[in-house]
Amino acid sequence: MEFTAKQISELLHGTIEGNEQVKVNRLSKIEEGESGSLSFLANPKYAPYIYSTRASLVIVNSDFIPEQPVACTLIRVDNAYTSFVQLLEVYNEIQLNKKGIEQPSFISASAKMGQDCYVGAFAYIGNNAWIGNNVKIYPQVFIGDNVVIGDHTTLFAGVRIYSDCKIGANCTLHTGTVIGADGFGFTPNSENQYKKVAQIGNVIIEDHVEIGANTSVDRATLGSTIIRRGVKLDNLIQVAHNVEIGENTVIAAQTGIAGSTRIGKDCMIGGQVGIVGHITIANKVKIAAQSGIGSSITNEGEIVQGSPAFNIGDYKRTYVVFRKLPQLEKRIKELEQMIAELKQITSS
Amino acid sequence: MEFTAKQISELLHGTIEGNEQVKVNRLSKIEEGESGSLSFLANPKYAPYIYSTRASLVIVNSDFIPEQPVACTLIRVDNAYTSFVQLLEVYNEIQLNKKGIEQPSFISASAKMGQDCYVGAFAYIGNNAWIGNNVKIYPQVFIGDNVVIGDHTTLFAGVRIYSDCKIGANCTLHTGTVIGADGFGFTPNSENQYKKVAQIGNVIIEDHVEIGANTSVDRATLGSTIIRRGVKLDNLIQVAHNVEIGENTVIAAQTGIAGSTRIGKDCMIGGQVGIVGHITIANKVKIAAQSGIGSSITNEGEIVQGSPAFNIGDYKRTYVVFRKLPQLEKRIKELEQMIAELKQITSS
Amino acid sequence: MEFTAKQISELLHGTIEGNEQVKVNRLSKIEEGESGSLSFLANPKYAPYIYSTRASLVIVNSDFIPEQPVACTLIRVDNAYTSFVQLLEVYNEIQLNKKGIEQPSFISASAKMGQDCYVGAFAYIGNNAWIGNNVKIYPQVFIGDNVVIGDHTTLFAGVRIYSDCKIGANCTLHTGTVIGADGFGFTPNSENQYKKVAQIGNVIIEDHVEIGANTSVDRATLGSTIIRRGVKLDNLIQVAHNVEIGENTVIAAQTGIAGSTRIGKDCMIGGQVGIVGHITIANKVKIAAQSGIGSSITNEGEIVQGSPAFNIGDYKRTYVVFRKLPQLEKRIKELEQMIAELKQITSS
Repeated sequence: MEFTAKQISELLHGTIEGNEQVKVNRLSKIEEGESGSLSFLANPKYAPYIYSTRASLVIVNSDFIPEQPVACTLIRVDNAYTSFVQLLEVYNEIQLNKKGIEQPSFISASAKMGQDCYVGAFAYIGNNAWIGNNVKIYPQVFIGDNVVIGDHTTLFAGVRIYSDCKIGANCTLHTGTVIGADGFGFTPNSENQYKKVAQIGNVIIEDHVEIGANTSVDRATLGSTIIRRGVKLDNLIQVAHNVEIGENTVIAAQTGIAGSTRIGKDCMIGGQVGIVGHITIANKVKIAAQSGIGSSITNEGEIVQGSPAFNIGDYKRTYVVFRKLPQLEKRIKELEQMIAELKQITSS
Repeated sequence: MEFTAKQISELLHGTIEGNEQVKVNRLSKIEEGESGSLSFLANPKYAPYIYSTRASLVIVNSDFIPEQPVACTLIRVDNAYTSFVQLLEVYNEIQLNKKGIEQPSFISASAKMGQDCYVGAFAYIGNNAWIGNNVKIYPQVFIGDNVVIGDHTTLFAGVRIYSDCKIGANCTLHTGTVIGADGFGFTPNSENQYKKVAQIGNVIIEDHVEIGANTSVDRATLGSTIIRRGVKLDNLIQVAHNVEIGENTVIAAQTGIAGSTRIGKDCMIGGQVGIVGHITIANKVKIAAQSGIGSSITNEGEIVQGSPAFNIGDYKRTYVVFRKLPQLEKRIKELEQMIAELKQITSS
Repeated sequence: MEFTAKQISELLHGTIEGNEQVKVNRLSKIEEGESGSLSFLANPKYAPYIYSTRASLVIVNSDFIPEQPVACTLIRVDNAYTSFVQLLEVYNEIQLNKKGIEQPSFISASAKMGQDCYVGAFAYIGNNAWIGNNVKIYPQVFIGDNVVIGDHTTLFAGVRIYSDCKIGANCTLHTGTVIGADGFGFTPNSENQYKKVAQIGNVIIEDHVEIGANTSVDRATLGSTIIRRGVKLDNLIQVAHNVEIGENTVIAAQTGIAGSTRIGKDCMIGGQVGIVGHITIANKVKIAAQSGIGSSITNEGEIVQGSPAFNIGDYKRTYVVFRKLPQLEKRIKELEQMIAELKQITSS
């Protein structure tokens, strides 16, 4: 893929300064620019790089005034950052625009395939699976019986979806993510042996959800584990059976949510957080990384930290004192000595 | 699969009230029941739902006395919960009763296959592997050379077992789980470079073990990493080389156990716990979620929390005071002022 | 593989005592030795086992003097441990010396394959991929378009590498590890909905790197996520976009590093550590397990613990006092009572 400055300028409705026939074939940071690369300058902090960059083409804000001669071609736009992100997307779409069915792949005769799909080699699509239009199923993906995949969804190499689960439209699931493995449900008998409780529910993932690599979302015992519209889950996250995560909630890597907990909408949850089962987290709650949540959070918008977690401001003030504990103990000891002395004085 | 109330009642040795010809084809919670679904009522808290549920068939305890008319057909049994779990299992067995060898799959000529096995497409079975009877090997599973898999064991899609490992009978391993990757063993040289210590041991998993999704159990350097009979491991757990986990111990998601540690029998370990290497945990120990275990626990049945962990009651009492640390510091400051004043008074 | 004592002694330049024709076909710990196994004795603590072991052949230090008759054949060498590790390596090399291309596999016509490679069944090699010499690609590995794999690198079953990433020479990546999934980058709009920021950078892994099972290293937004020469990563680790990890740094299982953070050289990072984004960790820093790093560490060689972490000695001293907090509170209460009494006395 190679484009001229003119072609890119037209795409972005920008204005060219310099050689409009210069060609670029990749994107780069301005400080790492090389001949043939296209970059951008939005943050004034990076302005000095524009005089030394070897990028062939740089997108700048329309009000940018160079203080020295600039070697590269410029495209002026209203917002250089937004325009660059737009190019990232175009680039990505071209890169990921796989089509067709590679062989060998395994598609059950009873599966229903949409139009314009990609099915990579060694992908497996089970009985009665229903695949929407323009779905991209990379190599080695597993789609169990009766699974539904909505339009425009991408499943990267090695995503695995157990039977009966439903994935919405415009979702992206990354490699190694597992949807619908059995929930962790066992009942002990009198000899401390555990008998499995069959897990026959499913997982429902709504539209516009993105899930990172090696995350696992367990199927419900009965009913559904539900990931609502717009949720973003990072890598290596554990979502247990019968959990529900509300719309547009964002969760960072390695966090775990135990069974039957309901997370509200628009929450932001940091990395390595642990949340116990059977509780409710209100909307817009923020949870600091590595926190442990042992009981429901009922106040909308609350921000917490700690394990067990409480209000983040209180936590930070508490931690300041925690770090001084040895001194505190020393002060107590000194007080005890002084009091002992005072007692002696007053009793004498 | 569709069954009449009469068929289900006979399976459960129950008594029907209502239309014994009504048909059901799925299981549901009573509050989510729909026409054609079968539900149960065991917990009296849910009794009000039986008057409004749209489930066609509900299993109830034999002593249940309705206070209003009930629209659905009832089956009375001794224990509604136990009977429902029994149905879950039957349902699951029918669902998961895959048989035969799908193509393309790769089975080494030297592998020994048992009877009634399922081998999914793109599964790989290495040289001299020994597969028992009625083993279910889902698509894209990898079984290395010399691996042994016991009877009635299920390996879901994409489970991977390195060479020389042994899996017992009646085990279930979920998608993405890795058995027998190299332990993390390196010896530094004088330039801080690390030389790998070859890991030539294996992993032995005994009977009736269940392991969740994306968990990894490393092979021993020499000898075996051992998961004893009846152990249940959740998702995303790390078990390092030469660890041994005792019978019927249960471990929640995202916990990590470092090398050569021995965990006793009947332990319960919460999620996101970290356990250092080369220690011993006694039988029946319970460890609260997110705890860090830095030294051996020798008392059978001890319950601990914290990082580093200590007795859970002490931890909870300590944490109550921790949350008040800023106040405590203020009280110390006030004491210091008062003492200073008293000193002045007494010295004057 | 079966070897005589004589053959092994020659390989190790040792001296034999006993039957030099005895044959061994496996390695074992001395306390678990059986007929046909080869073991070693280096640590004097294990010396008593040499009189009872059933191993056929034992490697000992040249200065070992038995106190009782020894049944097995001995090989005397300068350093029994080093010699045994040498044998482990030989054994491993023979075990893992797979060659050839199994079918079915998928190798793009535009991929460039080196010499003496192994490609397992169901492996996928994308367009313009460049594979070096003696690379071992186990079954079900995924190698995306334009990926580069250096000489003598091993990718175990089910490793997956997204397009455009570069893996160095002499690397080992274990099963389930994902290289180059999208970084977790989203920008919120006014309705709290998140729009994805396209992630078009890559991952560069230099030579002599080993990565455990089910770890994930995300691609950069722009530019590269970089794992420097000699780095060792354990299982289930999260490395976010644009992170850089310096040479010979070692990181234990389940640790997570957030976006754009730079880790120095020769660091040692324990398990389950969390490190926030956009910070810098100096060379030779050590971080205790389960710590949380919230800001840059600028002192070379610093050792920290806690969440947030600080100097490990201070942390340990602080934690000693933390465990006594209920007593401390009691002492403060007693001080308050005594002061109150003293005040009364002095004011009376």
